[in-house]
Formats: sequence, C-alpha cells, structure tokens
Amino acid sequence: MLLEPKAEPSRAAGTETNPTGGPAPSTKERNKTMNANEVEKKFGFLVFPGLEELDLVGPWEMISLWGKSLQGPGTRLLVAQTRDPVVCAKGMSINPQITFNECPQLDYLLVPGGEGTREQVNNEALIRFVAGQAKACQAVLSVCTGSFILHRAGLLSGRRATTHWSALSRLTELGDVKVCQERVVRDGQVWTAAGISAGIDLALEFIGSVAGEAVAGKVQFGAEYYPSGRFFGTLHQSPQAPAYLKMKPDKQTKEDHL
Amino acid sequence: MLLEPKAEPSRAAGTETNPTGGPAPSTKERNKTMNANEVEKKFGFLVFPGLEELDLVGPWEMISLWGKSLQGPGTRLLVAQTRDPVVCAKGMSINPQITFNECPQLDYLLVPGGEGTREQVNNEALIRFVAGQAKACQAVLSVCTGSFILHRAGLLSGRRATTHWSALSRLTELGDVKVCQERVVRDGQVWTAAGISAGIDLALEFIGSVAGEAVAGKVQFGAEYYPSGRFFGTLHQSPQAPAYLKMKPDKQTKEDHL
Repeated sequence: MLLEPKAEPSRAAGTETNPTGGPAPSTKERNKTMNANEVEKKFGFLVFPGLEELDLVGPWEMISLWGKSLQGPGTRLLVAQTRDPVVCAKGMSINPQITFNECPQLDYLLVPGGEGTREQVNNEALIRFVAGQAKACQAVLSVCTGSFILHRAGLLSGRRATTHWSALSRLTELGDVKVCQERVVRDGQVWTAAGISAGIDLALEFIGSVAGEAVAGKVQFGAEYYPSGRFFGTLHQSPQAPAYLKMKPDKQTKEDHL
Repeated sequence: MLLEPKAEPSRAAGTETNPTGGPAPSTKERNKTMNANEVEKKFGFLVFPGLEELDLVGPWEMISLWGKSLQGPGTRLLVAQTRDPVVCAKGMSINPQITFNECPQLDYLLVPGGEGTREQVNNEALIRFVAGQAKACQAVLSVCTGSFILHRAGLLSGRRATTHWSALSRLTELGDVKVCQERVVRDGQVWTAAGISAGIDLALEFIGSVAGEAVAGKVQFGAEYYPSGRFFGTLHQSPQAPAYLKMKPDKQTKEDHL
C-alpha cells in the first residue's frame, strides 16, 4: 500500500470521471460492482490489552452492519497476538478470533487506541503485524491513540493524521506527522480519527467512500446514529478543545453537515 | 423501586427546592455529596447471547469514564446467567464478570437490546433477575430492544418508553406501554433509549441527572463525543424514521441542543 499509494476516489458518488476515458458507469452500476467485490473482503480489528472499548466497538458495529446486511466485507476478524482473553482499558474482557500468525492477508485493518497503546508501541510482534499487513491493505484506519501504533509501524510519516485531543501535542512531538485537529482525517489510504467516539464517524465516512453514500446511510439508519448533538457543560469551548470542536458553531447549519 | 417510585429530581442543577424546607444547598455542595455517594454505587450491565455490541459498549464506556475518573459508580459489573463467554449479535465474544446468583444488589442496571432479546424474554432466570434487582435499584435503563426485556420484567406497564425505530410498532402492540418516538425517554426511574447508538446519549443524560451537567460534560469531553452530525443519504426523512428524527431540522439551532 505504501509503495503504491492509490489515487483517492471522489467522495461524492456519481461525480467522478472515468480514468479509462470511456463513459463513467452509473452510480448504481458502480455500487453494484463495488458491493459484489466487498463481500469477498476481509476487515481486521486489532485487539490488545488496554484498548479503549468504544474505540473498537463503535467501528466494529458499523462495519458489521455493513458486512452482515449490506454486502460489505464478508469476513470480520478480531485479531490479537494470542487467543487468550484480552482485558480492555475499562475492564471488559473479550476473546480474539484469530492470532497474528494465523491471520490471512487483510483488505482493511482498524487499530483502536487506549492506554494500552503506550506499551504496545514497543511490542515488536504487534508492530511487525501492522506494518506487514499494511503493505497489501487497501486501507488502514486508527481511532484515538491508535495513531501512535500506525506511526510506529511507519504508516504516518509525512502524512496528515489525528488522535484524541489530549494526545495531539504528543503526536506533534513525533516530528514527522502533519497533525490535523479534525474529527476524521484521510490521507490516501490511511484514515485516523479523533478520540474514542470519533471511530463511529470514521467508520461511516469510510463506508461512504468505499460503498457510496446510500450504503453508509443504511448503516447509519440501522444503528440509529442520529446523536442529539447536545453539549453538556462548556468544555467544548475550553482551550484544550481541538480546533474542529472550537469551530463547531452552536447553531449548526445544514452546510456544516455536508 | 416500582412500589415506591421516587420523585424525579430536576434536571437543571441548582434550580430545585430542598424537600426539607431548609435553604437549598449550592450546586457545588450538592454535587460533592452526590459524588461521594456515587463511588459506593454498583452499576450492572446485563449480558446475554445475541446482544447488540454497541448497545452495551456505548453506555459501558460512558459509565466507566464517570466511574473511573469522576467519582461515579465505583463498581461496574458485566452480569450474565453463567460466566461462560457470550457471543454477541455481530460475533464479538465477551466474558461476563459475575453471574445472576453471585450478583449483589445493584443500584443501577442497564439492559442492552439486540436480536437475542427475542429469545431472552422467555428466559425465566434472566427475567427473574431483572425484576428482582429492579425492586431496589435506583434506576433501570435499556437500549434499543432491551425495552422488551424491561417490559417482560413488569417495568414498563403504564410507562412512557421507546425502542429501535424498527420495533416501535411491536412495542405498541404490547398494549400497556406509552410508546414515545424520542431518542431518550425517562419515566421516573425507568430510562429507555432508541436504537443501538442511542445508548450513548442515554448514558450522558443519565449521568447529567445524577451527577450534574458539569460531570456529564467531563465524560463527554473525555470520550470526545461531539459527533459530526452528518446525515448520509436520505433515510432520516423516510416514513419509517422515528418522530424525533423527522422533526430534527437539517439546520440545527442552538435551541435544538438544549
């Protein structure tokens, strides 16, 4: 993947030109072909001690809804170093489905964050797994401080990326990352999300880019992901708040959503 | 709980009157006392085969952030019929921490939904556990089709409640529930949420009601729960969309958040 970065497909369905020069296929035809291919795809979710539960399960839910009912990736795997139960940052214990050694080549790999990342960036087997898979993955995605694992695997150098608001300065200190204070950042086939819950938005944007807006809309409807948008307290206006949040108007307009 | 329904505390901190007739304590004093008490509290999360992963993990994340760092419930338990691994609706396997028989009296109990609820409403041991705990719980909460389990446990008769948009008519057919097409519904100490992701909004509203707006804001900030609010496709305007969603203006105003 890194040796041959792919051109970014346009996000707006039906507006792209056909690179072969012939007439562009209709959105319906294009999505049909894409979806048929997607069923064969394998989506891996990295599991390690101290991962943050919602970092993993937000995207897991969205990708699974896509894969189970909407012709998204037919194989979804929770991948860890061993099959032993893994205790997450908030104490939930989950059982991995496959080990690094057993894992086939994935098409997509998502790396959650959490306090465990501070130790895992020094786990050679885990970093080798991520770097090795990434070579042939079509996309690698991280949530929250999962971006530090992507960086250690050599995937963020010179790229735009983000992380949890409290770790933005630490990501900047790495020196070779173009840190963006956005909720979801895409740089080619590397996608990074802001903190914890931002993985849900990341997953929907990703599904939209691969399968089209209508499919992402079906996943959103299935998960009933229409948050109230309520701000509790005033921390969203505090100095530590990331730029995308400070710029978020209290009065949201339709344009802000598009 | 059901025999002695408690008065609903006012949601706006600092505006309530003191039932003892004396001067009302300041918001700061009140929250200090409330938080000190909360540390002793036990929050249970019901686990059963076929539960929907995000129904459980959305609230789990929010309640755990509150409990771990902000003097919320010091004990948080994943409770199931046995300690055997439980496979969720989308294939994730998790390990319960305690069984129904071992579980102490809880202060709060959250019941997720998912396709597994169709079978679990007929699981006498599970329904007995929910009904028994509810008698002394300060609040019982459900997400998505978890409301059908609350109903079977006798907790929704004559009460306002909600569920996933696709199950609203089924909830209405039960005959004795005042079905509300809202994202989060509170009726006394029984809280119900709409589908899957709505459990996150439910948890924040609940934390706000117990510990105050500022604490809920800290949890929101910690989880970086400031969704983009983007609508993918047009299903949010479809006939099946729940009333709260149809009424949600494309141009959101500040008033919509308050």
